[in-house]
Amino acid sequence: MNTIAIDAMGGDFAPEEIVKGAILAKNLGIDVILSGDKDLIEPYLEGNKIPVVDYPEVISMEDSPSKAIRRKPKASIVGALNMLNENKAQGVFSAGSTGATLVGAISVLGKLKRDIRPTIASVLPGLERDIVFLDSGANVDVKPKTLLYFAAMGSKFAEILFEIESPKVGLLNIGEEENKGRDLEISAYNLLKSSNLNFIGNVEGRDLANSKADVFVTDGFTGNVVLKTMEGTAKLQQTLISQTLQDKLFKPLLIPVKNALKPVKDKLNPDKINCSYLLGVNGVVTIGHGSSSAEAVKNSILHTNKAIERGFINKFSNAISEL
Amino acid sequence: MNTIAIDAMGGDFAPEEIVKGAILAKNLGIDVILSGDKDLIEPYLEGNKIPVVDYPEVISMEDSPSKAIRRKPKASIVGALNMLNENKAQGVFSAGSTGATLVGAISVLGKLKRDIRPTIASVLPGLERDIVFLDSGANVDVKPKTLLYFAAMGSKFAEILFEIESPKVGLLNIGEEENKGRDLEISAYNLLKSSNLNFIGNVEGRDLANSKADVFVTDGFTGNVVLKTMEGTAKLQQTLISQTLQDKLFKPLLIPVKNALKPVKDKLNPDKINCSYLLGVNGVVTIGHGSSSAEAVKNSILHTNKAIERGFINKFSNAISEL
Repeated sequence: MNTIAIDAMGGDFAPEEIVKGAILAKNLGIDVILSGDKDLIEPYLEGNKIPVVDYPEVISMEDSPSKAIRRKPKASIVGALNMLNENKAQGVFSAGSTGATLVGAISVLGKLKRDIRPTIASVLPGLERDIVFLDSGANVDVKPKTLLYFAAMGSKFAEILFEIESPKVGLLNIGEEENKGRDLEISAYNLLKSSNLNFIGNVEGRDLANSKADVFVTDGFTGNVVLKTMEGTAKLQQTLISQTLQDKLFKPLLIPVKNALKPVKDKLNPDKINCSYLLGVNGVVTIGHGSSSAEAVKNSILHTNKAIERGFINKFSNAISEL
Repeated sequence: MNTIAIDAMGGDFAPEEIVKGAILAKNLGIDVILSGDKDLIEPYLEGNKIPVVDYPEVISMEDSPSKAIRRKPKASIVGALNMLNENKAQGVFSAGSTGATLVGAISVLGKLKRDIRPTIASVLPGLERDIVFLDSGANVDVKPKTLLYFAAMGSKFAEILFEIESPKVGLLNIGEEENKGRDLEISAYNLLKSSNLNFIGNVEGRDLANSKADVFVTDGFTGNVVLKTMEGTAKLQQTLISQTLQDKLFKPLLIPVKNALKPVKDKLNPDKINCSYLLGVNGVVTIGHGSSSAEAVKNSILHTNKAIERGFINKFSNAISEL
C-alpha cells in the first residue's frame, strides 16, 4: 500500500483546503500523511484518522527558496520530503512555493544524476489528448544541452504515464523553420535532431492546443509565462461568455447552457486539474497550483498515486541513468 | 484625405482576401493603393477603381527577410513602403512576412532615432479595455535597455491611440516580486523603476486578461510565444465549447446560444481583430495576421487610418526624439 506525504502548509488556502483535500483522497482509499503545524491542522481533521508529523515552520512565496530550506529544517515541505526519504511515504505533494519544493527535493532526496537539472513537467489538456509541457518554471536560464535533457525526461515521462511509444517531442519556438528562434533554440534544434528521441521539430504556442506533439520543451521562463497566459486567456474568455449569455440569452436558457459548459470550464481550470511533476530527483514529487482547492488537492493526490502505482520512479530512474 | 498603401501579395490568402478587404475599406470612404502583381490583382477588383502599382515580386515566409529586401526591389511590400516614402500614401498595411516588413521599413523609411530598435506592438483585447503588448516578435534577443525603449514606445503609443494619460507599464515576468526572472528582467526592472514612465512593476501572463497594466513589455521571443498561446488557448476552448453544446444541449437551443456567443469568439479571433503597429520607423506601418481574411484586412485598414487621423507619427516622433 502506498502512502503520500502532503505539505499541509503550502498553498494560498493552506492548511484548510489541503487538509480537506487529503480527507477526500483518504475516503477514496489512499493513505496520506500530513506534514505541518499540528495545532493548525487538527481542527480541520474533524475526527478523520490521518497521521500528522509536526513540522510547524512555513516557507512563504517571498522567502528565498535556498535560504529558507537551509534555515527552516522544520518547514512543512521538508517534513513531507523526509517521510519519502525515510520510506514512510512513496510520494510527496505540495501546493506551496515551487522553488522551495525544488530546492528541498534536491537537498533531501538528491538528484537522479549528477549533471542533470531537475525540471517541472506539467500535464496540460489538449483537444485529442493531454500533453507534457516542460520546463514550467524551475530553470529560467538554460543551455541547449539542458533543453535536450528536458526533452529526454519529458519523453520518458509521457511513455510511462500516458503509455505511448516514442512520444512526439517538439521544441517550442516562434516559427516552424529550423533557423527560427534565439541561439538557444537553434542549437537545441540540432542537438534534438541528432538525438534518438522522436523529435518532430519546432512547434508554436498555438500547437499546444492541437496535440501536434506529446511533449513540448522550453526554458522555465517561457514555460511559466505560457502556463499563466493559458490560464488568463481561458478565464478571460469564460468571463466574456458569462457576460454575453447573461445579456443576450433568454433567461430560462441560462441554467441549462451553463451546466452544459461546466465540463469545459473545469477542463481548463488550473485550480481543478493542474498537477505538475518534479522530474530528475530521487522520488515521486508533485506540485499543485498555489490556489489549489480541496478538489484540486484530491485530484493531485490521485495523480501522484497513479504515478507510484505505475512504478514511475524506478522506470524513470533507469531510463535517466542511461542518458 | 489620407491614402493607405496595401501590400496586396502578403498573407496566406493573398491577393484575393487582401484585395477584397481593400474594396471593403474603399466602400467605407478610405482611399487605398494596392502594391503587387497587377495581373494577379486585377481579376479581384471587379470594376472597383483602386490604383495598383506594379510590384510583382513576392517575399515568402521561407525567405530570409534581409536578403529578400536587398534582392527583390520589386517586392510588393517595398512598393507599398515606397508610396509612403514618396508621400503618395500616409500609411502602409501588410499581412505578409513580418520580418520583411520590419527590414523593409527600416531600409525604405529609416528609423526614428539611430540607437532605437524598431518593435512590433499589438493591441490585444482585455476585460475592461484593450492593452498594448510589445515586442510581438521583431527582436528575439534584447538587452535591458532595449526593453526600456520598448516600454517608452508602448507608453507613448497608448497615450496617443487610447487617449490615456501616463499609461500603466508592466514588465512581463514569472512573478510579481522585484527579484524575479532572468538577469534581463532584473536589470530592466531597475531601469524602468528609475525612468519617468508610470511603471507598476512586474506583471504575469494571467494579467494580460485583467487589464492590470495598459502596456505589457517583453522580448520578441516571449512575446511571439505568448500571442500564439493566447490564440491556441482561445481556439481550444471554443472547440471544446462547440463539442459540448452539440452533445449536451437540447438541439433547438443550439442556434440562439451560438449566436449569443459569436461576439466573444470574434473578440478573441486574431483573424478578425489583430492589428499590430511597427514602432520606431518614420511612418505609420501596420501588420496583420498571416491568415487575415477580407474582414480582418478591412479592420486593419480602419485602424491604420485612425492612427493617421490622430496625427500619430508626428506626436510619436516628437516624443521619441526626446528619449
